[in-house]
Amino acid sequence: MKYLSFFIFSLVMQAAGYADDGYRLWLKYDLIEDPALLKMYRSGIRSIRLQAAETALTASAVRELTTGLMGLLGKAINSTNKPASSAQIILSLSPPGGVINHEEGYRVVKDKSNIRIEALTDRGLLYGSFALLAYLQQARPLHALHLESSPKIKLRLLNHWDNPNGTIERGYAGSSLWKWYDLPDQPDPRYRDYARTNASIGINGTVVNNVNASARFLSREYLVKVAALASIFRQYGIKTYLSIRFTAPTYLDGFKTADPLDPAVRQWWKEKAGEIYSLIPDFGGFLVKANSEGEPGPQDYNRTHADGANMLAEALATHGGIVMWRAFVYKANPNNDRASESYNEFKPLDGQFLDNVLVQVKNGPIDFQPREPFHPLFGAMPRTPLMMEFQITQEYLGFATHWVYLANMFKEVLDSDTYSKGPGSTVARIIDGTVDRHKLNGIAGVANTGSDRNWCGHIGNQANWYAFGRLAWDPDLQTGFIAEDWIRMTLTRNTADVDVIKKIMMDSHEACVDYMTPLGLHHIMGESIHFGPQPWLARSGRADWTSTYYHRADSIGLGFDRTEGGSKAIGLYAPEVQAQWKDPETIPLKYLLWFHHVNWNKKLNTGNTLWEELCKRYYSGADRAAGFLKAWQNLQGRLDPEIYSAIEGKLKRQGWEAEWWRDSCLLYFQTFSKLPIPGSYPKINRSLDELKQLVRLYQMR
Amino acid sequence: MKYLSFFIFSLVMQAAGYADDGYRLWLKYDLIEDPALLKMYRSGIRSIRLQAAETALTASAVRELTTGLMGLLGKAINSTNKPASSAQIILSLSPPGGVINHEEGYRVVKDKSNIRIEALTDRGLLYGSFALLAYLQQARPLHALHLESSPKIKLRLLNHWDNPNGTIERGYAGSSLWKWYDLPDQPDPRYRDYARTNASIGINGTVVNNVNASARFLSREYLVKVAALASIFRQYGIKTYLSIRFTAPTYLDGFKTADPLDPAVRQWWKEKAGEIYSLIPDFGGFLVKANSEGEPGPQDYNRTHADGANMLAEALATHGGIVMWRAFVYKANPNNDRASESYNEFKPLDGQFLDNVLVQVKNGPIDFQPREPFHPLFGAMPRTPLMMEFQITQEYLGFATHWVYLANMFKEVLDSDTYSKGPGSTVARIIDGTVDRHKLNGIAGVANTGSDRNWCGHIGNQANWYAFGRLAWDPDLQTGFIAEDWIRMTLTRNTADVDVIKKIMMDSHEACVDYMTPLGLHHIMGESIHFGPQPWLARSGRADWTSTYYHRADSIGLGFDRTEGGSKAIGLYAPEVQAQWKDPETIPLKYLLWFHHVNWNKKLNTGNTLWEELCKRYYSGADRAAGFLKAWQNLQGRLDPEIYSAIEGKLKRQGWEAEWWRDSCLLYFQTFSKLPIPGSYPKINRSLDELKQLVRLYQMR
Repeated sequence: MKYLSFFIFSLVMQAAGYADDGYRLWLKYDLIEDPALLKMYRSGIRSIRLQAAETALTASAVRELTTGLMGLLGKAINSTNKPASSAQIILSLSPPGGVINHEEGYRVVKDKSNIRIEALTDRGLLYGSFALLAYLQQARPLHALHLESSPKIKLRLLNHWDNPNGTIERGYAGSSLWKWYDLPDQPDPRYRDYARTNASIGINGTVVNNVNASARFLSREYLVKVAALASIFRQYGIKTYLSIRFTAPTYLDGFKTADPLDPAVRQWWKEKAGEIYSLIPDFGGFLVKANSEGEPGPQDYNRTHADGANMLAEALATHGGIVMWRAFVYKANPNNDRASESYNEFKPLDGQFLDNVLVQVKNGPIDFQPREPFHPLFGAMPRTPLMMEFQITQEYLGFATHWVYLANMFKEVLDSDTYSKGPGSTVARIIDGTVDRHKLNGIAGVANTGSDRNWCGHIGNQANWYAFGRLAWDPDLQTGFIAEDWIRMTLTRNTADVDVIKKIMMDSHEACVDYMTPLGLHHIMGESIHFGPQPWLARSGRADWTSTYYHRADSIGLGFDRTEGGSKAIGLYAPEVQAQWKDPETIPLKYLLWFHHVNWNKKLNTGNTLWEELCKRYYSGADRAAGFLKAWQNLQGRLDPEIYSAIEGKLKRQGWEAEWWRDSCLLYFQTFSKLPIPGSYPKINRSLDELKQLVRLYQMR
Repeated sequence: MKYLSFFIFSLVMQAAGYADDGYRLWLKYDLIEDPALLKMYRSGIRSIRLQAAETALTASAVRELTTGLMGLLGKAINSTNKPASSAQIILSLSPPGGVINHEEGYRVVKDKSNIRIEALTDRGLLYGSFALLAYLQQARPLHALHLESSPKIKLRLLNHWDNPNGTIERGYAGSSLWKWYDLPDQPDPRYRDYARTNASIGINGTVVNNVNASARFLSREYLVKVAALASIFRQYGIKTYLSIRFTAPTYLDGFKTADPLDPAVRQWWKEKAGEIYSLIPDFGGFLVKANSEGEPGPQDYNRTHADGANMLAEALATHGGIVMWRAFVYKANPNNDRASESYNEFKPLDGQFLDNVLVQVKNGPIDFQPREPFHPLFGAMPRTPLMMEFQITQEYLGFATHWVYLANMFKEVLDSDTYSKGPGSTVARIIDGTVDRHKLNGIAGVANTGSDRNWCGHIGNQANWYAFGRLAWDPDLQTGFIAEDWIRMTLTRNTADVDVIKKIMMDSHEACVDYMTPLGLHHIMGESIHFGPQPWLARSGRADWTSTYYHRADSIGLGFDRTEGGSKAIGLYAPEVQAQWKDPETIPLKYLLWFHHVNWNKKLNTGNTLWEELCKRYYSGADRAAGFLKAWQNLQGRLDPEIYSAIEGKLKRQGWEAEWWRDSCLLYFQTFSKLPIPGSYPKINRSLDELKQLVRLYQMR
C-alpha cells in the first residue's frame, strides 16, 4: 500500500470532515498533481541518507523530509544507512573553508543522480532540508535543482506579546499558543508544529511572553514551564528568550529596590541567570521594555537605560546570553513631538552599552502605523547594534480582517537609505551590521500567531509570518518572489491563479494605506479599536494618544509640521534625507503629511490639490479593496473550498471597513476643508454622526 | 471505492498529521472495529429514506445520518426516495395521539427488517437520528434497537459568557467561538459543528454573549452578526438568545433614563424587539443580569426586578420570546450572609412576573462552588418558573486542568428534595415544572467551550458538556450511564477500558471536593485565580469576596454558622430540610461546615475529630487524584495516542495542584487548630510561606 491515490486521500479527508482549514500553513506537502512531475520526483528520490552525526537537528531534518516526501510523492521514502548510486538525498557536513562559509548556510545540489544537502552544521542541514522541500512543494524541476543560501542577519526572532492568562496584547487570532496552566506536564503537540514552521523560514529565536512582562516568568515555577517549551523549540534550532519585568527582584524576592547599580540587585540577576541556564542551557536572553508606557525601569532609580541593560547583560554574558533593550519610549510631555522622543533618549547613550546588548527599535518613530518613514535612530547609533522590530500582527492594519501583505511595508523600511555612512547605508545594512561592523545583529517580528486553527486568523496573512522569516534571512529578497513562493506552497500551484493572488497581495499594503492613512497621515485610528477610524478623537489619557495631535487638521490645511518651522523632528535624519523631505515639493507624497502641514488647496505634483488628492486616495483605496474581492471571486472552484470561502468572507468585510474608513475620514476632514467631494466619486450616503456612532458601538464594553 | 479499509484511513490520517485532537467530540463516527458487528450493521443498513417533508431540520438529520454512517460503516449509505423491503432507515412523522406525545420526542425501532425513526415533528426526527447514531457508535446490537425518549425540560440552553473582544469570562479553552469582527460575512465552519454537537444531546437554545453584556449586541450592526449565527443554529433546532444590558437605550440612542416604567423606554424595547424578530424570526429572548455585581438594573430607578423583567417580557411576548432574569444578586452589605441575599430579594416578588418570564437561579446560594447545598429559592417561588443555572465551565473546579465529571454534582442538586410540596419535591421536579405546574421551564449551563481545538481545553471535560445536555433532557438519568455512553463514543468501545475510565470519572467530583473544599467548606480559592487555594485571603474589595468570611476558622473551630444561632440562612429552607441540617449530628458531613461552626476536637460520626476528618479528606482527595493518573497510565497504548497523552499531562498537573490545595489548606487551618497532622500521613515538606508565594506567583500581572 505504498502508493496512495490522491483521489482516495481526498475522499477520506472529506468524509472525515477535514477540508483545508489552513492549519498546515505553507508546509502542506500535498501530492504533486502534475503526473509527469510526480513521476520525475518519484524516480529521482528513493531514499534519504544522513551522512553526519545524528543530532536533534539532523533528526528533525530527516523526520521533516520523510513526512514531506510522503505527502508530496504519495510514497514512503525511507531513511537508510546504505549509500545508493542514485535517487538518494544525502545530508552531509562539508568541511570549513569550502563553498559554504556561514554556519547557518546550506547548499542543495544534484550530485550526479543523487541530491546532496550540505552545510557546515546540523542547523544548516535542517535549513537545507526545508529549502529542498519548499522547492518540491513549488513544483520546480529536479534537474535544475541548485539552492545555496546563508542568512544575512544573525538573530531572527519572533516576539510574542502573550500574557500569562492566555490573552495576547494585539493578538487577533485567538488566544495564546502557550498553555501555561498545562505546562510543563502537557506540551501541546502544536508547539512542535510552531517550531517546524519557524525553522522552515529560518527563524532561530522566540520571545515567548509579552514585553509588558509579568515577573512570574522568572520564578522557578514558570522557568520549568518555559524549559518545557524550550526543549521542543531546541529540536528545530530555535532559542527561547524571555521578556522580563525590570523590578522582578522586588516582586519575587521582596527586594526594596531594583536599582541596577545596587550590588544585591546585580547579584540577584546573576543568580537568576545561572538558574535559567541550569534549566535551559541554550537560553537566548532577555527582551526589555523599561520606562515605557508605565513599565518600570532604571530611570525609576535615576539610572540610565544603559545602566539597566548592562546589569542584565553582565548577568547573561558568561552564559552567552544577550539583552534586547527596546527603544520604544516616550515621556509624558505632550509639548514634545512623540516622533523625536525615542531618538532623544537613546542617541546620547550610543557607545555606553555592553557588547551583548542590542537596542531594539521599531521600524518607524511612532508606533507601527500603516506607513511610517524609517525610525531616525537607524544610522544614528553607530556604536550600538540596532535590532529591527517589525509588527507582523496587524494592530493598525485591520486586525485579522484585512488582507495586507506586509512584506512590501517591511521592504520599504529595509530599503530606506539613512545615509549615515554615505549613500547605500540602508536600514537593512544598518541592522545586518554591515554599515557599522557589528557582529551581533538581529531582527524581530511581533507575531500574528494565536490559537486559531489557521494560526493567524486570516489565511492570507500567514504570508506575513512567512515573508518576515524570509526577509529576516535575506532583506534583499524581492517581495514578489516571496509572495509567489508562499502562494505556490499554500494556495495553488496553477500559474494563472498564482498571478491573480499575487496581484492582490502586491497592491494590498498600498491600498490599505490609501483607505486608512494616505499621504503620510498617521495615528487617526479608533481609541481601543485600532482597526477602525476615529480622526475626530481629540481627548484621551495623553495628548499624543489622540488623532488630532497627529493630523492637525484646521481651516488652512492638514498634516503635522515636523520641519524646522514646526517640531523639528525632521532634523533627526541625515542631511541627505532632510534635503528630500524638507520641501513639500520634493518629498515623496507618501510622507507628505507626516512632515508638512499642507494647505487644502495646495497643488501637488499629481496635478490635484491636497483635498482632491486626499479624496482620490481614499476612494481609490476602497475601490481596490472591493476589487480584491472581485478578483478573488474569479478563483471560486479553483482552490480548496474552505480556504476560498474563508478568504472571500474576510475580503467582504475588508471592503466594508475600507468604506467605513473612507467615509469617516473624508466627511470629518471636510468639516475643515469645507470643500466638496468631487462629483466624479459616488456620493457618501451616510452622515458623519452615523459613522461616529458605528465607531462608538465597537468601543462599548 | 465504496469500502475504505480502516487501515488505509489510519495511514492517511497519520501521514497527514491528523492524530485525534478531540475536535470531533463525541461525534467521532470512527469505523466499527468488531468485524461481526460491522457486517451486521452493513447488512442491516443500506439506505436512508425521508418519508416526510424536507425541512431544514430533516435535511440536517439526513445529512448527519449520511456522514455518520459513512464513518461507522466505512461505506456510503445514500438517501433515496424509493421504499426498500429491508435495511432502510425510514424517517417519518407519526400522527398525533399515538405512542409519541411530545413534540420533541422520538421513537427509533426495528420495523421488520427496516429501521424506523418516528416523531411528531421534524425536530423529533433530528433527535431520533442522533439517537440512532449514538446507539451505533456505542456498538450496540441492531436487533435490540428500541429507543424512545422525550425531554422533560422545555428550554435546554447553553449560556456563553463570551465578550465582544473575543475573551470569555471564566473560559479556559481559548477564546470565544464567535468571531464578531468577521461576522456576518465569514461564518466559521465551526459554527455548524457547534450546532450539530448541541443538537446531538438535545440542547435547543444558546445565549451567545456574556451576562455582563455589552449594549452593542442590540445595535443593528451586531444584530446582523447575531442573525448570521442564528441562521446556522436554526438548522439544528437551536434558538438564539441574547444577554442584554439593561441600560441599552441610554447607550444606543442617547436616552436619559432606562426606567422600566418610562413609556419611551418601554416603546424603545418594543421597537427593538420588533427589529430583532425581523432579522431573527425564531429569536429566543433575553437573559438579564441586573443590579448584580455592578451591572445596571431597574433598582437604579427605584423599580423592582419584576418591573424590569416585565417590561422586557411585554416587548417580547407578541413575538413568542421569553425573559430569563437572573437571581444572582447580593447587595454590598457584609453583615448579611451572602447565602441569603438572593432569596431575600426574590422571594417577595413571587407572583409578580409575567407569564413569559423565568427566574434563573444558580444551583447553590453562593457561586458555583465545588459543592453547595441547593439554592433555597428552589421550591420557594411556586408562582414563578425557576430556571436552573449550572456552570459547566470549571471556574472553581480547577479550570480546564482538572478532570472533574460534573454530572454527579449536577445530579446531587437535581435530586435534592426541597419538600416544598411535601417529599419528592426535588429540585428536578421544581425546574421541570411538575411541582408547581409551570408549562414554561428550563435549565441552562454556562458553557465550557472555546476556540481550543478540542473545544473544552480538557478532552475529559467534554463529558460535562455532554452530560449537561443529557441531564437537561432527562434529569432522572443515571450519571454512570451517561458517562459510559460518552466514553464509548469518545474514547474507547473496549468494555474493560470503559470501566477504568468510568471509575475515574465517577469519583472525580468527590475527590476534587475532598482536596479543595471538603466537609462543606467553600469559597476559599485564590483571588483572581479561582483554581488555586487561598484560605488565608482576608481582605478584598468586599468582605464576602474573602475566604475568611466563609470558613470562619478560629481557635475554637471551623465553619460558617448559618443556624438560628448564626446567620439564620438555614431558615430559608423547608422545615423538613432544616430538620436534617440544623443539627451537626445529623447533617450530612458534606454540608457540615456550610451550616455549622464546629469545634476542632468535635467527634464526627466517622469516629474522627473534625481536625482528623479534615486531614483525612484532604489527603484522600489528593491521593485519589494521584490514583487517577495511575489508572489512566494503565491505558497507555490502548487509546488514541494524542488523546492519551493530552489527558495524561492534565492528570499530572491535577495531581500537583491537588497537593497544592491539600498542603495550603491544612497548613493554614493548622495555624488555628494547633493540632498535628496525624503521623500516618506523609509529612508536608514545604512551609505555608512557600505555598503562599506560589499563589502570589499566579496572581502577578
